[in-house]
Amino acid sequence: MTAVPAPSPVLVLVPGVAGTSAPGEEPFVLADPAAPQLLVTDLGIVRGEGAFETIGVFDGRPMALAEHLARLQRTADMEDMGALDLGVLERAVHAAIAAHEAVGEMLVRIFVTPGPEAGAPGAARPTAWIHAKASPDYSAPRRGIRVVALDRGIPTTAPATSPWLLAGAKSLSYAVNMAGLREAERRGAQDVLFVSSEGYALEGPTSTLLVRRGDTFTTTPVEAGVLPGTSLGTVFAALRAEGCVCTEELLTPAQIVAADGAWLIASGRLAAPITHLDDVPLTVDHALSERLSDLISGRA
Amino acid sequence: MTAVPAPSPVLVLVPGVAGTSAPGEEPFVLADPAAPQLLVTDLGIVRGEGAFETIGVFDGRPMALAEHLARLQRTADMEDMGALDLGVLERAVHAAIAAHEAVGEMLVRIFVTPGPEAGAPGAARPTAWIHAKASPDYSAPRRGIRVVALDRGIPTTAPATSPWLLAGAKSLSYAVNMAGLREAERRGAQDVLFVSSEGYALEGPTSTLLVRRGDTFTTTPVEAGVLPGTSLGTVFAALRAEGCVCTEELLTPAQIVAADGAWLIASGRLAAPITHLDDVPLTVDHALSERLSDLISGRA
Repeated sequence: MTAVPAPSPVLVLVPGVAGTSAPGEEPFVLADPAAPQLLVTDLGIVRGEGAFETIGVFDGRPMALAEHLARLQRTADMEDMGALDLGVLERAVHAAIAAHEAVGEMLVRIFVTPGPEAGAPGAARPTAWIHAKASPDYSAPRRGIRVVALDRGIPTTAPATSPWLLAGAKSLSYAVNMAGLREAERRGAQDVLFVSSEGYALEGPTSTLLVRRGDTFTTTPVEAGVLPGTSLGTVFAALRAEGCVCTEELLTPAQIVAADGAWLIASGRLAAPITHLDDVPLTVDHALSERLSDLISGRA
Repeated sequence: MTAVPAPSPVLVLVPGVAGTSAPGEEPFVLADPAAPQLLVTDLGIVRGEGAFETIGVFDGRPMALAEHLARLQRTADMEDMGALDLGVLERAVHAAIAAHEAVGEMLVRIFVTPGPEAGAPGAARPTAWIHAKASPDYSAPRRGIRVVALDRGIPTTAPATSPWLLAGAKSLSYAVNMAGLREAERRGAQDVLFVSSEGYALEGPTSTLLVRRGDTFTTTPVEAGVLPGTSLGTVFAALRAEGCVCTEELLTPAQIVAADGAWLIASGRLAAPITHLDDVPLTVDHALSERLSDLISGRA
């Protein structure tokens, strides 16, 4: 048996992310992802400042790209990073996809940081890049995931009372999200459902919550301090067209366990049905899970 | 008038941070801080994972270096990063100081990340570097700082109940700390005192709280989810030798305003007396502030 070499990741640097290209400089350019590209003084590494998005690309088509770009700007605004040139980023995303070997499923990530810290060369000019790679095998989580509910510490009122806590920002400061995933692993689970300090279900570390109760589908209100789900608009539009009711509502883990199904939805992994929440089994509808995934990936 | 050129920063890369040097590879090596050194796949930038320390260096002497190295390992442990070679890091810190132009005050920072993400070249081998630069002019904050109290969202019980929230870790995910400082600036202040969700004073975004009430000096208990202050041991030892009482205790902002003085202490900026907390004036003792700074900087 001959090993099939994995397709190589693609990197596109985007010096023109804030309309700040030098005269004659291309706003984006292909670069080597295996060579060092970042300064040690970049605030993205020094302080975890910046925004990112992960976009699922299916058969060459990036899904909900406009929604991802809008959310990137939303995070940048929450971190006082100013206006990004979303048109340049959109073209750079397409350039990264075009430069990548054709694969069925790809993850394209956009990163933007405030650039090097004050006093360092290049300070105050944002750093941005696009990284494209073939998706890992998501077949197992798409069949089902065991999930643990973990306290996210802060209340659902945090966005209104304490905007500096950046609740609902997709910032580069994701150490807590990663620590949550390691805690899930220690407990024999594959993912996390973060819960507010009042006990309401929020979202996964890298995913959006969707709950079905009869013909009603529910997600967490953005105002409670979660990311606006980029795939959710597509899902809700299709479900509404079939006469389902789609709502934003705060639910408790107990309500989720008692529901007719629950998923953690993400742009690349698609709809992962929750089989167990803290070891309590949930109703799993594989046909509906596949349909939700097909909707999000544009394969419906 | 001739402009005096600022001394150049020094960068030391530490491939041997986890005893993982390749055969014949030096455990640390001087590098160019103005050239790209980091991969875009490093988990330090992709997820804000990793640990850092900032060490004040006065007349060439790094202060409380052992305490900083111990705290770096503590953060690494909280992030499941494994054992670091603290001996190599210590030698690399001294090499960075030796390579830097002699200046009265220097900031030396140590950074360690888990390395590139799974599947990327170099994955699972930590990335580490030391960055040394001349300190900025801290004379203004050493005379006094206006401080705002900002909700940190989480309770003082978080370390015990929810270790995945990384309360008290000096991780690279500092976006919230930086957003807090920008909020302070918007309110006409220079720094932040983070407060727990129960209303107890915790620490600054990059500093430790010290409060004086008569002959008693108090800081926040580490168990409440703050960093163990590296300079505090020196300060407490000297104060105790003079007959003062030094305690770890939870205080409210109201108790701090009514105290005989309060400071935010940091390794480089030293003792910055709080002149106002949320616009309420505090007692300021400049002679004591200078003495505390002299203790921390080893100039007493």
